[in-house]
Amino acid sequence: MKIRPLHDRVVVRRKEEEQTTAGGILLPGAAAEKPNQGEVVAVGTGRVLTNGDVQALAVKVGDTVVFGKYSGSNTIKISGEELLILNESDIYGVIEA
Amino acid sequence: MKIRPLHDRVVVRRKEEEQTTAGGILLPGAAAEKPNQGEVVAVGTGRVLTNGDVQALAVKVGDTVVFGKYSGSNTIKISGEELLILNESDIYGVIEA
Amino acid sequence: MKIRPLHDRVVVRRKEEEQTTAGGILLPGAAAEKPNQGEVVAVGTGRVLTNGDVQALAVKVGDTVVFGKYSGSNTIKISGEELLILNESDIYGVIEA
Amino acid sequence: MKIRPLHDRVVVRRKEEEQTTAGGILLPGAAAEKPNQGEVVAVGTGRVLTNGDVQALAVKVGDTVVFGKYSGSNTIKISGEELLILNESDIYGVIEA
Amino acid sequence: MKIRPLHDRVVVRRKEEEQTTAGGILLPGAAAEKPNQGEVVAVGTGRVLTNGDVQALAVKVGDTVVFGKYSGSNTIKISGEELLILNESDIYGVIEA
Amino acid sequence: MKIRPLHDRVVVRRKEEEQTTAGGILLPGAAAEKPNQGEVVAVGTGRVLTNGDVQALAVKVGDTVVFGKYSGSNTIKISGEELLILNESDIYGVIEA
Amino acid sequence: MKIRPLHDRVVVRRKEEEQTTAGGILLPGAAAEKPNQGEVVAVGTGRVLTNGDVQALAVKVGDTVVFGKYSGSNTIKISGEELLILNESDIYGVIEA
Repeated sequence: MKIRPLHDRVVVRRKEEEQTTAGGILLPGAAAEKPNQGEVVAVGTGRVLTNGDVQALAVKVGDTVVFGKYSGSNTIKISGEELLILNESDIYGVIEA
Repeated sequence: MKIRPLHDRVVVRRKEEEQTTAGGILLPGAAAEKPNQGEVVAVGTGRVLTNGDVQALAVKVGDTVVFGKYSGSNTIKISGEELLILNESDIYGVIEA
Repeated sequence: MKIRPLHDRVVVRRKEEEQTTAGGILLPGAAAEKPNQGEVVAVGTGRVLTNGDVQALAVKVGDTVVFGKYSGSNTIKISGEELLILNESDIYGVIEA
Repeated sequence: MKIRPLHDRVVVRRKEEEQTTAGGILLPGAAAEKPNQGEVVAVGTGRVLTNGDVQALAVKVGDTVVFGKYSGSNTIKISGEELLILNESDIYGVIEA
Repeated sequence: MKIRPLHDRVVVRRKEEEQTTAGGILLPGAAAEKPNQGEVVAVGTGRVLTNGDVQALAVKVGDTVVFGKYSGSNTIKISGEELLILNESDIYGVIEA
Repeated sequence: MKIRPLHDRVVVRRKEEEQTTAGGILLPGAAAEKPNQGEVVAVGTGRVLTNGDVQALAVKVGDTVVFGKYSGSNTIKISGEELLILNESDIYGVIEA
Repeated sequence: MKIRPLHDRVVVRRKEEEQTTAGGILLPGAAAEKPNQGEVVAVGTGRVLTNGDVQALAVKVGDTVVFGKYSGSNTIKISGEELLILNESDIYGVIEA
């Protein structure tokens, strides 16, 4: 089962991070700040401009993207996995190796 | 009796889910989070652009769609069944098998 | 006496419903939720686009329309009858038999 | 002395109504709901579109218009008479005999 | 010393009115409602449209204009005189003799 | 060291005024209303319109400009001097001798 | 590891300043106002206009830029270094030697 995002939507798998403090204490739940990076797993067909033209997205499947701290609140469950739904405008940039 | 949605409106039958916790406790009313997936039962003719052109919708009748948690507050009753009225922009994507 | 709505305005006669609960108790005033369906009694000439073109409305006199729960606050009295003034964008769709 | 409204402004003389309840009690001041109908006494040259074109107004001097309950707060005094200043978009429609 | 307003700005000298009640009591400070009429003393070159065209203003120096009650908060002092700075959109119309 | 403002930004040196009351009392800090006039020390290349065209600014270096009372909160320090950063739209007009 | 910003995003390394008061007291954490200047380390491909054209950014890698005091809240960590993500519109201007 997979999702086909509409228009300028991007589906992202949030990067897992060690939820521990510098001193090694495990941070439970809300205390741990979630990483705002992830891997793009699906992209929409593009942003629809006011004249009806479609602008292809600037990210692609497999990209590691950075997004705003407050952009990760829309989630869906696909095959038991929680994925983020972002607008392309929520994405700051792409991490390059 | 059926509804013909206007423009970029989409009528969706919300997917029923078992309203039970992992431990099997039935969750009454507001405690149960409603599933934000559903089946498209009718679509409008398209979104009207500022220049008057009409852009066909990217979803079609029968599609299983995912929408925002807070998008399902507009409902209508058709033949006794409660259906959601969404704008296409409330829909994140289409679930594919 | 009748009203000629301007532009994208639509005049609607709200559908009357039995204001009783399932158990047959009459609900007075605010306790009764008003039905958000009605019959179109007059339509404007169309929505004016930003380039000045006029887009004809997608509803016509006689249509049974469904509108948002919170859209029915603008009313006028014509020949003693209270009618709703809606924008076309307040209307979700048209009920078809 | 008279006023020439600018652009899409419309000057309206509010219709006087008997400020009495059904039982004939005179309602003073704020208790009496002001009628939201009036006669157009002057109209602007038209609404300026974003491309600079001017769209003539859909109401004319002498029309009886219906407007929103909350649109009548801008008033001017011309020759001792209080008149309303509305935008055309505040006007729902024109009453026809 | 004088001011050249930019674009769609209009400089207005507020009309002085007798600050007395009907009974002849002088109203001090905030109790006296300031008149929302004045004389145009300078106008900008015009409103810049989104396509870059400039639309000349519909008022000219010497016009007596009526403006919104809440539009007169931007003031400047020119040669010791307090003048209002309005946008043309704050102006309802021009008083004609 | 100097600053090259971007687009429709304007750098202004706020005019110094005697911070004394009519009676000659020195007003400290917040009690003294800052003058909303100043001298333009640098201007951007122009405002970018929605179609990509650039509209040159209507003020130039050396102009004495008047701006809104609440527009002077963005400041930068250049060579130890505090300068204001305004948008051209914050500027009401130019004082001419 | 580096970041490729999207569209009109600009990545900035905030300028370090001596976090001491005039009297030489070290200011810890929040008490020290962070400098709102920095060096551009990466720029996006440009701002997408409503007609789909792309407008190249007015800053380039290596520029020292000044930005709003309240614009520096979006940060990312690249190779252990905290960098700011700004929109070009957050940037007031470029400091020139």
